[in-house]
Amino acid sequence: MSGNTYGKLFTVTTAGESHGPALVAIVDGCPPGLELSLEDLQRDLDRRKPGTSRHTTQRQEADEVEILSGVFEGKTTGCPIGLLIRNTDQKSKDYSAIKDQFRPAHADYTYHHKYGVRDYRGGGRSSARETAMRVAAGAIAKKYLATLGIVVRGYMSQLGPIEIPFKTWDSVEQNAFFSPDPDKVAELEAYMDQLRRDQDSVGAKITVVAEGVPPGLGEPIFDRLDAELAHALMSINAVKGVEIGAGFASVAQRGTEHRDELTPQGFLSNNAGGILGGISSGQPIVAHLALKPTSSITTPGHSIDVSGAPVDVITKGRHDPCVGIRATPIAEAMMAIVLLDHLLRHRGQNADVQVTTPVLGQL
Amino acid sequence: MSGNTYGKLFTVTTAGESHGPALVAIVDGCPPGLELSLEDLQRDLDRRKPGTSRHTTQRQEADEVEILSGVFEGKTTGCPIGLLIRNTDQKSKDYSAIKDQFRPAHADYTYHHKYGVRDYRGGGRSSARETAMRVAAGAIAKKYLATLGIVVRGYMSQLGPIEIPFKTWDSVEQNAFFSPDPDKVAELEAYMDQLRRDQDSVGAKITVVAEGVPPGLGEPIFDRLDAELAHALMSINAVKGVEIGAGFASVAQRGTEHRDELTPQGFLSNNAGGILGGISSGQPIVAHLALKPTSSITTPGHSIDVSGAPVDVITKGRHDPCVGIRATPIAEAMMAIVLLDHLLRHRGQNADVQVTTPVLGQL
Amino acid sequence: MSGNTYGKLFTVTTAGESHGPALVAIVDGCPPGLELSLEDLQRDLDRRKPGTSRHTTQRQEADEVEILSGVFEGKTTGCPIGLLIRNTDQKSKDYSAIKDQFRPAHADYTYHHKYGVRDYRGGGRSSARETAMRVAAGAIAKKYLATLGIVVRGYMSQLGPIEIPFKTWDSVEQNAFFSPDPDKVAELEAYMDQLRRDQDSVGAKITVVAEGVPPGLGEPIFDRLDAELAHALMSINAVKGVEIGAGFASVAQRGTEHRDELTPQGFLSNNAGGILGGISSGQPIVAHLALKPTSSITTPGHSIDVSGAPVDVITKGRHDPCVGIRATPIAEAMMAIVLLDHLLRHRGQNADVQVTTPVLGQL
Amino acid sequence: MSGNTYGKLFTVTTAGESHGPALVAIVDGCPPGLELSLEDLQRDLDRRKPGTSRHTTQRQEADEVEILSGVFEGKTTGCPIGLLIRNTDQKSKDYSAIKDQFRPAHADYTYHHKYGVRDYRGGGRSSARETAMRVAAGAIAKKYLATLGIVVRGYMSQLGPIEIPFKTWDSVEQNAFFSPDPDKVAELEAYMDQLRRDQDSVGAKITVVAEGVPPGLGEPIFDRLDAELAHALMSINAVKGVEIGAGFASVAQRGTEHRDELTPQGFLSNNAGGILGGISSGQPIVAHLALKPTSSITTPGHSIDVSGAPVDVITKGRHDPCVGIRATPIAEAMMAIVLLDHLLRHRGQNADVQVTTPVLGQL
Repeated sequence: MSGNTYGKLFTVTTAGESHGPALVAIVDGCPPGLELSLEDLQRDLDRRKPGTSRHTTQRQEADEVEILSGVFEGKTTGCPIGLLIRNTDQKSKDYSAIKDQFRPAHADYTYHHKYGVRDYRGGGRSSARETAMRVAAGAIAKKYLATLGIVVRGYMSQLGPIEIPFKTWDSVEQNAFFSPDPDKVAELEAYMDQLRRDQDSVGAKITVVAEGVPPGLGEPIFDRLDAELAHALMSINAVKGVEIGAGFASVAQRGTEHRDELTPQGFLSNNAGGILGGISSGQPIVAHLALKPTSSITTPGHSIDVSGAPVDVITKGRHDPCVGIRATPIAEAMMAIVLLDHLLRHRGQNADVQVTTPVLGQL
Repeated sequence: MSGNTYGKLFTVTTAGESHGPALVAIVDGCPPGLELSLEDLQRDLDRRKPGTSRHTTQRQEADEVEILSGVFEGKTTGCPIGLLIRNTDQKSKDYSAIKDQFRPAHADYTYHHKYGVRDYRGGGRSSARETAMRVAAGAIAKKYLATLGIVVRGYMSQLGPIEIPFKTWDSVEQNAFFSPDPDKVAELEAYMDQLRRDQDSVGAKITVVAEGVPPGLGEPIFDRLDAELAHALMSINAVKGVEIGAGFASVAQRGTEHRDELTPQGFLSNNAGGILGGISSGQPIVAHLALKPTSSITTPGHSIDVSGAPVDVITKGRHDPCVGIRATPIAEAMMAIVLLDHLLRHRGQNADVQVTTPVLGQL
Repeated sequence: MSGNTYGKLFTVTTAGESHGPALVAIVDGCPPGLELSLEDLQRDLDRRKPGTSRHTTQRQEADEVEILSGVFEGKTTGCPIGLLIRNTDQKSKDYSAIKDQFRPAHADYTYHHKYGVRDYRGGGRSSARETAMRVAAGAIAKKYLATLGIVVRGYMSQLGPIEIPFKTWDSVEQNAFFSPDPDKVAELEAYMDQLRRDQDSVGAKITVVAEGVPPGLGEPIFDRLDAELAHALMSINAVKGVEIGAGFASVAQRGTEHRDELTPQGFLSNNAGGILGGISSGQPIVAHLALKPTSSITTPGHSIDVSGAPVDVITKGRHDPCVGIRATPIAEAMMAIVLLDHLLRHRGQNADVQVTTPVLGQL
Repeated sequence: MSGNTYGKLFTVTTAGESHGPALVAIVDGCPPGLELSLEDLQRDLDRRKPGTSRHTTQRQEADEVEILSGVFEGKTTGCPIGLLIRNTDQKSKDYSAIKDQFRPAHADYTYHHKYGVRDYRGGGRSSARETAMRVAAGAIAKKYLATLGIVVRGYMSQLGPIEIPFKTWDSVEQNAFFSPDPDKVAELEAYMDQLRRDQDSVGAKITVVAEGVPPGLGEPIFDRLDAELAHALMSINAVKGVEIGAGFASVAQRGTEHRDELTPQGFLSNNAGGILGGISSGQPIVAHLALKPTSSITTPGHSIDVSGAPVDVITKGRHDPCVGIRATPIAEAMMAIVLLDHLLRHRGQNADVQVTTPVLGQL
């Protein structure tokens, strides 16, 4: 399959550029009979939407999604769901300054070498604007998973140098940063205000958690659940690292510390992040992702142009000083897509399996 | 596709359990005309082979591979390459003690819930023994990539708490740890000797690097090169985290620091790890992976059995106290497989593209 | 992959129902740099469009396509091409009569059993209206193939009992039937006029030919070029049979008759239909497809309703009395999609191959 | 995916050449808990095996299969099943005469142009010897389907000019031709004896039927059940045509004749061949395939060599004068593989669907 489709039974295919007429997606394989409304999609789209606080890009996009197919009388039909979002705020600014330049840390140089031609307006296909459709598709997956009691949620766990301890889910939707600690918000705001004054950007760390996932999802060997999560999460713009459970902390752990012991009352810990041998264990699935600082900053940088000559690049336009801030709903969407795809695969192959061993919770 | 196949144009499908009769693989899509001998495969198999030092499992496996098809008169034919490795040291020990128990941090519990039945001998399909075939398949990919000047190599960058700075590739094959610093080897040996006395295990960090990769490999959006590398590397047993380039360090970086500026003389840094917008930039591709400590340790652990009753599990047998030690050739193999798959995909779609912009090296 | 995507490197994903708001497609993997305009797509869409003669459905659909992405400054960028066609003539007629009935020979009964719910308006997803998007996607494939001198064309070779011998390509676009014999047109018109008076429908046979295809396209074993053509052509609504070359006539042929002998001047015949061992030979690729008579006819038929009770079904609405009449551009589109997909796959794997043996033409 | 893998959830990957050391297959996605023995596979392998009557090739192959993985204590584990068949009768004859010649109607010319190199011994990968592994994999699918009451069977419906009417399944396994009419066997034998005297070959038509298939299998739009069957059956060596149900006879049918009316007592006919809108209807699934005459005949034929010079080719060796004779178990295997794959896909997506409408039988 070419690169713009994800999944095997539940598949998401997207198209659309930052400054083209529209974004479009086809979501295939959604189980039939699921109640689905525009509001279900819009809720998450609004969480990702630009321009909702001073800490994100000031581009104004309504991000209003239209359902073109696959839903009839308020329910999914099992047929593919077409989704459309018109771009409305593609400012007709003059791109001639950058059309022959390669902005550092952007995909300009690599798209140029790969395709020879490229849509340079706002990054074209490589823009994070594309992720709007992932969020819409993910909202469908989340809705179905919710009917089975599976909840996928995320939060910001670090902004630049500021670590954000998990306090409460209640806080996450109450601030512009998806911070699970309400007491950290003032510090985050001050940091971001200074960052804008510095004309710089910064990275972030996002944590995504799925609760209520039954044991059994994931296919050995190559389609392990953790491997597919790593794929899906690393495919998000700006992501440079993915961890499952203890992640890189596992390196310095001893086996006696890392192994999550089992008791009849439940697992004693969750270093595994809910996945053993590539298959969900019934524990919460926990993933962390590292996002690099936004590449588009107004501080000039050294680069070259298409002829190979040196240039100084200044990236104007409206950009997020921390792309990680809007990444939480995107990460949730990708995790939900992976989980639903694997749920369908699992119950396809293993419909006959009956196990009497109790499913453990977590202590 | 079911879970035991990786890749789209260059695909690797494997089967085989730890204590079954054999491991088998089918490598499909290899370009024709490549000179390929058993020695090409055996070299890497021997690097992964158990029992070559006192720091790895004492299981004795010759890991002699047989080529069943796809090679004729010393050259690949373009047809699928069948590979076979007979298991020779599947000790007929008594597994009745663990057949109804779930070893902590193993896949026992999850396979049981997924499939209802499982081959409990030595972990069955979930055993790292399966990775022998990845190494054999990867050796084919490496051989083809080498004809284009692409070299894929790895080394251990951390063992438990001991960080190993990169000194020289010359050191890597000269010690049992794939350490790039010869001066660290004594410390590593002492650490491992103590670890065995403690009846414990420990994690490790491996770094893999591909040099000579042309710009252009990787497919937006979901099949980004970094996303597929994350998939492939996370699919290796015990891996809990994957980083590309600066990885999690990106979180605390500022944009002015992270962005790799370009000059006519080359890139000024490589925080990107050789991938921008999901596409190779021509810089070295750099990935790090975190491996958890071996789950099989002789120190007893709490668990349950298939009826849900509490048990104390003692894992006997011959196990690696640090699975990371033998992971370097496996990680190299997976990176090589991903790169070759993407090379074939890229030149399929973009055969017409001619770009006159010079390809930059790295300063 | 779920069922609404076709292809591996060049992929086409579609969505949309007969009476929903729109049809949508995402065409992925098109080589970059191809000049592409709306006219390129519209030309074939108009050939398939309903209501252009009295012999097809009188539904009026402009079938105006919009390109949403993947084309920049008149050229493809290598990124996915989003396509949109709004449905404009979804008559708001009353479907309550048939919503609980299963029309014989339609997909009503099977969709009902598969999904539990279905969009019954005009057949929903099972309507041949969906093929408009195949034609648009196929037009892109045809445009690229044409740059390599590959031409894909089709014609009607039989209408009901009337066999239509191939006379000249010049005739095909000059009549409503895609008849390659201008002298047959009057007979076809008379037959169709009588058929409408009979309130009945009839089948048809379409032949599709690709000329200029280089030898080498097609992947043994399962992805043979003929196997993929059979897949793609059988996936067209109403198709019940596919032949390559001599097809079912091969059954009664002897080997001395069937084999296409080779001479330095060219092949002496083309019973193979241009494919040997699943790989193109450089001869014209020839496929025939059988289309069943339209299921929607006004003559009442026996059926049941969702409760299992007997009903007499009368299918009103505007229908093609012979779906085969508009099938020629659809069949061309599917053949072009398969050929381009295989071209990309072939040159991905076999870019290094250099063969000095001359490519034979056909005598 | 490269071309040697078939299926999405239930996948079959094969490798191996006619005169190489072995054939190998990996069957992935088989549900766990299925009782499976060597005998289950051997039964069908023996039905396909060469040398069992004077009407097939006299090559002697035991075709003894070994199960390398995926079966434990007599049951499938859900993990991939590795299969191995050693070639035992690869006569070390001198192939130098044909190594630079292209045998008419063989894949020699096309493999040469595709890959540059080829294993010319006995056709290499293009030999029908490869189908042994399909039969073994198909036997696994059949075994699972049988647990659900689904039976897949085939027979020869035409040999050269001799049509063979369906009389009784009881006859099929009682003669060398898979003839369902015992009274035709003498005529078939006489025809074949004369054919051998003529040093010629002939085509055949095979019919495959699946009974007990529940309604609902098949995925619109491109992965229709009939489209995938066409793909799978056309991928068999020598197949030039595939029909579902009435097939090419549909062309001359009228709608009032073709449509299979429904009554509470059952369907009144089965022109559809058990598939409507690409989805199984619960009626028997019926497919016909046309096989061309064997290409390997001893009567000399015109051809060229790799330099383009004219040659006369005489194909020696041991060949089937009618490849169709041994094709019945292969066609059954491919149909079973497609059905199981679609069954798993269907119940993955539609596990929640409950339909109270009765499933109709056929009158």
